[in-house]
Amino acid sequence: MRRIMVMNLGSTSFKFKLFEMAEEEKCAASGGVENIGGAGTFFTLINGERVKGECDSATHMDALETCMQALRGRGLNVDLASIDALGYKAVHGGRISGAQLVDDALIAEMRRMSDFAPAHNPVYLNMMTRMRQAYPDIPQIACFETAFHASIPLARAVYGVPYEWVARYGVRRYGFHGSSHSYIAWKMAQVAPDARRLISIHLGGSCSLCAIHDGKSVANSMGATPQSGIFHNNRVGDMDVFCLPALAQDMGGLEPVMKALSSQSGLLGLSGVSNDLRQVEQAARDGNAQAQLAIDAFVDSIVGYIGMYTAFLGGLDAICFTGGIGTNDAALRRQVADRLTFVRARIDDQKNQDGSCEALHAPDSGIGIWAFETNEELMVARGCMRVLGA
Amino acid sequence: MRRIMVMNLGSTSFKFKLFEMAEEEKCAASGGVENIGGAGTFFTLINGERVKGECDSATHMDALETCMQALRGRGLNVDLASIDALGYKAVHGGRISGAQLVDDALIAEMRRMSDFAPAHNPVYLNMMTRMRQAYPDIPQIACFETAFHASIPLARAVYGVPYEWVARYGVRRYGFHGSSHSYIAWKMAQVAPDARRLISIHLGGSCSLCAIHDGKSVANSMGATPQSGIFHNNRVGDMDVFCLPALAQDMGGLEPVMKALSSQSGLLGLSGVSNDLRQVEQAARDGNAQAQLAIDAFVDSIVGYIGMYTAFLGGLDAICFTGGIGTNDAALRRQVADRLTFVRARIDDQKNQDGSCEALHAPDSGIGIWAFETNEELMVARGCMRVLGA
Repeated sequence: MRRIMVMNLGSTSFKFKLFEMAEEEKCAASGGVENIGGAGTFFTLINGERVKGECDSATHMDALETCMQALRGRGLNVDLASIDALGYKAVHGGRISGAQLVDDALIAEMRRMSDFAPAHNPVYLNMMTRMRQAYPDIPQIACFETAFHASIPLARAVYGVPYEWVARYGVRRYGFHGSSHSYIAWKMAQVAPDARRLISIHLGGSCSLCAIHDGKSVANSMGATPQSGIFHNNRVGDMDVFCLPALAQDMGGLEPVMKALSSQSGLLGLSGVSNDLRQVEQAARDGNAQAQLAIDAFVDSIVGYIGMYTAFLGGLDAICFTGGIGTNDAALRRQVADRLTFVRARIDDQKNQDGSCEALHAPDSGIGIWAFETNEELMVARGCMRVLGA
Repeated sequence: MRRIMVMNLGSTSFKFKLFEMAEEEKCAASGGVENIGGAGTFFTLINGERVKGECDSATHMDALETCMQALRGRGLNVDLASIDALGYKAVHGGRISGAQLVDDALIAEMRRMSDFAPAHNPVYLNMMTRMRQAYPDIPQIACFETAFHASIPLARAVYGVPYEWVARYGVRRYGFHGSSHSYIAWKMAQVAPDARRLISIHLGGSCSLCAIHDGKSVANSMGATPQSGIFHNNRVGDMDVFCLPALAQDMGGLEPVMKALSSQSGLLGLSGVSNDLRQVEQAARDGNAQAQLAIDAFVDSIVGYIGMYTAFLGGLDAICFTGGIGTNDAALRRQVADRLTFVRARIDDQKNQDGSCEALHAPDSGIGIWAFETNEELMVARGCMRVLGA
């Protein structure tokens, strides 16, 4: 049995899962801290029992320590020095992908790609650097979000740019959310093995769709960076690059534009209400037309990518929703499914409303419609096991 | 009967059609000049007789005069001062669309949008300004390429940006190639009136797809600018905006990046061979892998948009190819059709090869497959007639 601590970092959030990996894969504890750098909250979950509290974590390292203390307070004495591996759900490794030991070269390449993932890479780089100092003897393993997408054909990965830019600047589609989409591919292979042409729809703070053929990714809506594809809670999604010069000229350079596109855009920017879809939906119900526009645009872009991926897959057997929005927002699932007349999708309203169901399609539906909670950290732990075993 | 002179300008090209519009719509003469500013060539076409020659036109005004002289030399004495209207196939009018008299406000708005259409707007602005000075008494009418797309729903037109940017900077999807796609919508309504859910595929120097429902545009692959969508002869197409900061930093600012994206990219940049698909196809046949990659990427993106638009249309009745590549490149049409298994498309090889056919589908095809030469200038002339009649 090996104990693997998997860390999932956001700009002001820290989440972990502690796995005991043997023939059975067991999550011994999980938890996290929200609002790092401000008046924070933490939670832990051990054997199904959830505990919450307030905390004051200035950094992600502090957040980790807060969680470790909370575990000790509940009788689970986790000595980090005794862990077999620290796993990171790392985002953009440029030329480096897969599950890889964290070393100087990996850190240098992640730093080089920070412009491509400004909300993600810096926070991982900071944590990795500190953890390597604090625990130099523990294998630290980065499992990149791009890894699952290595199977996307090159002709689908290139943009229409001078070809030398691919090697020189890394200007190509990578795809992200690989841990989540690979979990859905694995899960769906258990419950619906005939669904060989599958679209995984991860909707949360970040959102992406993935076309999966026989368990392999063949397309992902995120391209060179995790800002692209359908729009996100506060990041822009797909946009015409030729809008940028006029914006940069008026806003005082490219930097404020990119900052707005990576923090004041997406659902927040378009709705003018919130980066939380639940609040945007409430505002729309209260008659806010701009909030309704943002929801309509979100649904429309999901439907569009489902169409694109149906063409790429040569037909469609099933879709599967995941992520916080995908598993919890029945109204949104309904709106998407109702638009999929081209594959004769029919959702069962009762099953869709009932949170316990996983198969949501009506008997006469042309495609399977599913929803599963994802488990990205498990896929990272498995990646770590492969590295430890090698 | 009214005589309308329609002008279609490229950065170094000039094309015209002279229409005599009555109950019958007659093209009395057409022609153009290539390679303006260099060792140019002109051609004229009158009553099916084509004449070519060399010429030396420094400007688009010179090119127009060259063509007028050539017409006079063939006994067609066109006095521009006697024309009822000058029509422009204008590109980006920002907030101004439709068919509109050229006035100071229109010119100012086109100038404001020049960053969005750097290969198109400046050349029209130059010509319009000079023609207004030379012929102040002739109605000059701009028919914008965005006009046909006014029917695209707002939720499909917005990007995930701060909503105030739509009004302030014009950051939204407009759609282009409206004259061509509206011609195809009109033509298909004659020959296949049951094809209510139609995708028009214009492939030429510029390329775009348009989803057409009951004759109205509901989506176009070009967004805020005619550089986006599938890639073009030398323009980039869709690309992740977050690649730009790293490129701008390395290449010495945003300007050289945008210049490369609007003149050294697309088919030319990706293939490394040519901006002419025929030459890229020849290179691929000769074993050039990068040329083959560019063709594969081009086909793949067309297939992807067909899928997206099938979802938007709720199913698909027919596709129609147009533009220079679309009407002439049987191999490319075949590659696209062969990939459309999700709608059970079947192209008839004999009809596809035979240049005289317009309906190219096999009897058992799941969709209609068509190819027509477009007639953008006719749609501009009709726009002018509406303005003159008002």
